[in-house]
Amino acid sequence: MSSPPNTSETNPTVSPDEVITAGLIIIGDEILSGRTKDRNIGYIAEYLTAIGIDLTEVRIVPDVETRIVEAINALRHAYTYVFTTGGIGPTHDDITADSVAKAFGVGIDHHPEAVAILKQRYTDDQLNAARLRMARIPDGGHLVHNPVSGAPGFCIGNVYVMAGIPSIMQGMLDGIAPMLKTGRKMLSETVEARIPESLLAEGLGKIEAARDGVMIGSYPFMDADGYGTRLIVRSRDGAAAAAAAEEVRQLAASLKPDM
Amino acid sequence: MSSPPNTSETNPTVSPDEVITAGLIIIGDEILSGRTKDRNIGYIAEYLTAIGIDLTEVRIVPDVETRIVEAINALRHAYTYVFTTGGIGPTHDDITADSVAKAFGVGIDHHPEAVAILKQRYTDDQLNAARLRMARIPDGGHLVHNPVSGAPGFCIGNVYVMAGIPSIMQGMLDGIAPMLKTGRKMLSETVEARIPESLLAEGLGKIEAARDGVMIGSYPFMDADGYGTRLIVRSRDGAAAAAAAEEVRQLAASLKPDM
Repeated sequence: MSSPPNTSETNPTVSPDEVITAGLIIIGDEILSGRTKDRNIGYIAEYLTAIGIDLTEVRIVPDVETRIVEAINALRHAYTYVFTTGGIGPTHDDITADSVAKAFGVGIDHHPEAVAILKQRYTDDQLNAARLRMARIPDGGHLVHNPVSGAPGFCIGNVYVMAGIPSIMQGMLDGIAPMLKTGRKMLSETVEARIPESLLAEGLGKIEAARDGVMIGSYPFMDADGYGTRLIVRSRDGAAAAAAAEEVRQLAASLKPDM
Repeated sequence: MSSPPNTSETNPTVSPDEVITAGLIIIGDEILSGRTKDRNIGYIAEYLTAIGIDLTEVRIVPDVETRIVEAINALRHAYTYVFTTGGIGPTHDDITADSVAKAFGVGIDHHPEAVAILKQRYTDDQLNAARLRMARIPDGGHLVHNPVSGAPGFCIGNVYVMAGIPSIMQGMLDGIAPMLKTGRKMLSETVEARIPESLLAEGLGKIEAARDGVMIGSYPFMDADGYGTRLIVRSRDGAAAAAAAEEVRQLAASLKPDM
């Protein structure tokens, strides 16, 4: 990942205990069929974590209006922010803007600023009906700058609509991030152990239960040296995370692999 | 992808027009935080497409029981099959089996066959409470063979519960596939054009509208040679897909890039 912006100086302030959440909707038949492998989920997840927003749910939905509308309405009422990728190009299968308008119950039309951006990029001959489609923005929406290829994304309410092409999405996200409320960052420490997670399980449960706000994830892995367990200790309180991670290290050191 | 099985000889037969659908639930905080990049969605999507099952929705949810229950119940009533990955290990954050039991409103207990599998793998000393947790299966569930590391997955109703580690998930899916109903495979042809999709848009819409059951996806890309558009023509009718793809090729050949 390119380093996300240090947003602390620009972002709206929130109370120290407010947790900022996000849902993400990936729109596109090509991801569901497996022809295109998604490269946006992991990037956005890491980016939001780094700026203090908890990604709490992801949905991948097909290019079908009712399904997009349903996902947007489910997630926008559940989370602080919703991000979408995909479906904002010029072709018949690009129906995200219309779907977002339906979800909000508003009209949609060519947005004068968006048209102006496209006019800077294209001659009158080039600016055909398909390209003009990319300037259609739901009523009340604000443009999201596209530093790569011109045609903007948009936001309306708490929903941010971005392109599906990773480089364009990433440029848009850099533009959006400074406007977002962000909470205390979730801090994490990683402990790697050549111990099966089943031997660590009891001790991990106790370490986690003993400290409020500390979460311990346990992720078995296999590599050339055999099995191991990666333990991720997370907390918004750095001292608590460090102390729990030290206990996890001691736990791992006290055990011997039994297989 | 390793080649999926040719399932036509083993799978239950369905009527030619029946479309078999699937939902996929990825369970795990580590994916939502971006620390672990998902490697299962693309694999499962491609695999299901290849055997004639349409993956129609994916949800990524955290290690939180209410959220897992909600996703399972939403998807199992909406699609022919639901697959899940993650959360079936021995640690405190592995709550998938309990969540599936809650979703189905059934009890959960150590499954004798699953215990027997673990006993083959572990000595009595090794088979601690954490490892035995991996033998807890919702009442009425059937085991799914794990050719890699022993601890089984399971299925109950139309829900198939698999491990999150990609190699283990892939082994389980190979075991599950021969039991699934599969429909007529969606066939696709790809046409690549060095034409902006906005120039193709009008013609593509007409080609798609002219043929029932033909879908055309348009995916702009960027590479070292600049912009281009990948057009994916899909249909369950191979002749229709081939004819539409030929029309798309002719459309692309009739146009010149204008930027």
